[in-house]
Amino acid sequence: MAAVHQAALELLEDPGAEVTIPAVARRAGVNPVSVYRRWGTREGLLADVAITRLERDSPPVDTGSLRGDLIAWAQSAVEDLGTPLGHAFLHALVGSLPTTPEADAERSSHLLRRIVTIQEGIFDRAAARGEHVPAPEDVFDIVLAPLYLRVLWGAPQADPVVLVDRLLKLG
Amino acid sequence: MAAVHQAALELLEDPGAEVTIPAVARRAGVNPVSVYRRWGTREGLLADVAITRLERDSPPVDTGSLRGDLIAWAQSAVEDLGTPLGHAFLHALVGSLPTTPEADAERSSHLLRRIVTIQEGIFDRAAARGEHVPAPEDVFDIVLAPLYLRVLWGAPQADPVVLVDRLLKLG
Repeated sequence: MAAVHQAALELLEDPGAEVTIPAVARRAGVNPVSVYRRWGTREGLLADVAITRLERDSPPVDTGSLRGDLIAWAQSAVEDLGTPLGHAFLHALVGSLPTTPEADAERSSHLLRRIVTIQEGIFDRAAARGEHVPAPEDVFDIVLAPLYLRVLWGAPQADPVVLVDRLLKLG
Repeated sequence: MAAVHQAALELLEDPGAEVTIPAVARRAGVNPVSVYRRWGTREGLLADVAITRLERDSPPVDTGSLRGDLIAWAQSAVEDLGTPLGHAFLHALVGSLPTTPEADAERSSHLLRRIVTIQEGIFDRAAARGEHVPAPEDVFDIVLAPLYLRVLWGAPQADPVVLVDRLLKLG
């Protein structure tokens, strides 16, 4: 499994390479059938690789305040999304999500739960300091949604400090 | 061109149909080469169909106030995104956007400009009434981004009234 993740990362970093399940399996030295069985689709595999990368930096850095922690987290998300690899991952993540309203809410909520878990380290520390903790939906709507949608749209990135201050003002 | 749009819509509405450029061209009775030449990719074609649908309802309904106009616009976006067709279009639109940070900012900004133009009817009326007009980036970040990203993520939809009131409070 680590070999498959590693192979996917290496292919994503090679601008000339096609990132398909057969190509990833070949590079990892495993049978493509076992990759299909575990991840289902190319997008499912890349989404798993992407979230595993996010989890690697979890819990996020402790700056001593909720505002500082959120700004550091949002700034590192912006930096990550600005690289070709981060960008490819976001497209893969979105491409792996259900394409009809009815479909596959369970798979989607599993991915979302993993992303929310990454932020929980920040909120747990804020609660321990006695700070007011914002609702996860507000973090999603006010900070995460503009950062992600601006990348998907190819628009210039928002200022993470403005987004975090907006969240704390409303929270 | 209208025949190609119509054929794409009909195929998208048929759950058993594959929506490819050759299939759309066949149904429209045109040469696939001319479809490739004009739209480039399947995603480019579907994005054009999606935005043309949005433009159809433009300018948005006049309720007599900026708040009412924005709520009506956001509610109709939520309804549209909740249908299988609206959902398929959003995925196609995102799939048509550049997949590397460097790529194709011009094509992306053309799509964005068409979306912004739809909202301008609302802002022009607000300005004529003497109401304070929010910045387009704030409308994008505070209202549009959560609505669209929640659909892409398969999360339950946000309340458009909450988002619009948040925008007006901050604007």
